[in-house]
Amino acid sequence: MPAGFGDDVGSAGIVRTKHVTFDQPGRTLSLEGGGELWPVTIAYETYGTLSKTRDNAIMVFHALSGDAHAAGRRSTNDKRAGWWDIVIGPGKALDTDRYFVISANVIGGCSGSTGPSSIDPATGKPYGTRFPIITIADMVEAHLLLLDHLGIDKLLAAVGGSMGGMQVLEMAVSHPDRLHLVVALATAARQPTQAIAFNEVGRQAIMADPDWRDGHYYGGKPPSKGLAVARMVGHITYLSDEAMQEKFGRRLQDIQQYTFTFDADFEVESYLRHQGLAFTNRFDANTYLYITRALDYFDLSRRHGSLVSAFREVKSRFLVLSFSSDWLHPPYQLKEIVSALRATHKHVSYYEVSSRYGHDAFLLEREKMEGVIGAFLASGARSFAP
Amino acid sequence: MPAGFGDDVGSAGIVRTKHVTFDQPGRTLSLEGGGELWPVTIAYETYGTLSKTRDNAIMVFHALSGDAHAAGRRSTNDKRAGWWDIVIGPGKALDTDRYFVISANVIGGCSGSTGPSSIDPATGKPYGTRFPIITIADMVEAHLLLLDHLGIDKLLAAVGGSMGGMQVLEMAVSHPDRLHLVVALATAARQPTQAIAFNEVGRQAIMADPDWRDGHYYGGKPPSKGLAVARMVGHITYLSDEAMQEKFGRRLQDIQQYTFTFDADFEVESYLRHQGLAFTNRFDANTYLYITRALDYFDLSRRHGSLVSAFREVKSRFLVLSFSSDWLHPPYQLKEIVSALRATHKHVSYYEVSSRYGHDAFLLEREKMEGVIGAFLASGARSFAP
Repeated sequence: MPAGFGDDVGSAGIVRTKHVTFDQPGRTLSLEGGGELWPVTIAYETYGTLSKTRDNAIMVFHALSGDAHAAGRRSTNDKRAGWWDIVIGPGKALDTDRYFVISANVIGGCSGSTGPSSIDPATGKPYGTRFPIITIADMVEAHLLLLDHLGIDKLLAAVGGSMGGMQVLEMAVSHPDRLHLVVALATAARQPTQAIAFNEVGRQAIMADPDWRDGHYYGGKPPSKGLAVARMVGHITYLSDEAMQEKFGRRLQDIQQYTFTFDADFEVESYLRHQGLAFTNRFDANTYLYITRALDYFDLSRRHGSLVSAFREVKSRFLVLSFSSDWLHPPYQLKEIVSALRATHKHVSYYEVSSRYGHDAFLLEREKMEGVIGAFLASGARSFAP
Repeated sequence: MPAGFGDDVGSAGIVRTKHVTFDQPGRTLSLEGGGELWPVTIAYETYGTLSKTRDNAIMVFHALSGDAHAAGRRSTNDKRAGWWDIVIGPGKALDTDRYFVISANVIGGCSGSTGPSSIDPATGKPYGTRFPIITIADMVEAHLLLLDHLGIDKLLAAVGGSMGGMQVLEMAVSHPDRLHLVVALATAARQPTQAIAFNEVGRQAIMADPDWRDGHYYGGKPPSKGLAVARMVGHITYLSDEAMQEKFGRRLQDIQQYTFTFDADFEVESYLRHQGLAFTNRFDANTYLYITRALDYFDLSRRHGSLVSAFREVKSRFLVLSFSSDWLHPPYQLKEIVSALRATHKHVSYYEVSSRYGHDAFLLEREKMEGVIGAFLASGARSFAP
């Protein structure tokens, strides 16, 4: 495996997460499921400088467990850079010497934007499961509030992998005038069956935990055991069979012989237990439920009758990237997007990146992505006038 | 998907599970992990008639959730035939007009053979987690007690898929004189990393359930929620991505529109919840822990230094079958067995069965398996003198 995030020399520097709250009376965020959400706080970061003509804004969209902190470090002592620091920074694919990059936490999240752990103004207590079901389209609407706030009418590009890829596709379809370029990585135009199935396992694991208490656990013990199991199963789907064999094989953890117990004899068991536990320290179980639900409901073809119809009014130019060993969103799911775009004569480039790292490849394969994304943005920027 | 089990006209008829208990004082079953198990009860069924020269005995070995009831029906009203009824019966691959077929529940199981829910003679209470850790080799040793009891010195064939395939490989390696032919399907010579990982998720789900109570739940409420989650994740690994898309797609369950709740909107969610729940009615959570542990510890190469060394003393002729869409034990894992056997100049035939049904294909693809297995057995029987 490549070294962890943040080992690069180039960096977006020291960054601070900002927050903006939309609470004007009389306004609201109407949700696809019928409810509404107001006020709405959005946590976000920016890297680079917005040009005077506002023609260099790129928004990145995070995946299930991501947050607004996409690049740079929070302090000089911060050992870990943002989740996409390999892509965002001076001289990188999203070159912050040229572009103004915006990253925001989705609504439903647990890292500063309004979500189930936020205070419900109707009760003065955390929403818990009184939080409304949100969709990928709702996440995009909330992000558009932020773009309005920042005075950005039209993005040069919207860039996202996995759930982030769903958001950029959704924005291209529902707001064709708000973005010039789309970069969608390791994603799908509709959540596939197997991914729904794994998400349902994670949800059932959380909801089976008695500490979940129907989602009203704030101030008490959170459902950490259930969330850890959910994270473990999710994590397996992010790695390829090959990557797991290479990284762990059947190696034992600090022992020479089997213990013949239920202890974590194998490195892979120890790793998964650690991943599960570490996740519970930074992530909210209800957010896991809400965001996986949003993923599962995502289906561009459903609302429009077909994927081709969905893309008919799209005005953006697309770059679609798949990763050869990604079995959560295998290349055929990306090709489905490409075929539908081509069927409506849209401008689309497609690359299958050869990688052993599975779904996580879009977070790891710096070199293989850099040239392709960099060239696509540079070329697209020349034809852009917001 | 093909129709469910037991829709065939041919059948092994009405069968009854028998039990034999080995409890002679002074004897014991020594276990690979160092402990011992005694007395040992084995639940088993037989189909067909043992020949006078005892040259037609075939033992089938079940997978994780299987039991002794491999074929036939328990009564004329029984809607569901045994788990491998498509393979065992008059005129089928394991033709009960010719062969005497034996099927037994593994130790550690919960369907009649001694397992964690059995009474521990030391305490007069169910073992729970005082049950010793057992391995695939231990399962084989217990099955040999049964073969001795039945007066069968040498099997014409040992046949098994998935965990059953591991048992037949183990028997071929550790008791080369006890079997003439080996048929191994959808299995591996060592449990792969990804399979360990999924099993660990299942175990953590069970152990996270407060009703598990360190395994001492008998007489009380069993850890059904944890076991259901474990079964759900296991079940996904038995189906292919393609089979899930075909069988469920994104179809909704008895509704026209999303409910925008955490209900089982999708058929696949409803199916998995049902599979999880149904499993808790027939399976013991501790058995799930013990049997997955046995699977994870299985590694023929470990004890012998390499797979080639493990197979050096083997005397059997092998038929190895993989299934194209099986991602739990993909064809490369079966080919690894074949390569090692060929490296020691053993007689081995290999077929990759083209199938869309994933790992479960070995339980479903009657027609594609029948000719290959039938011919291999018939040919091998001609050279067999026990």
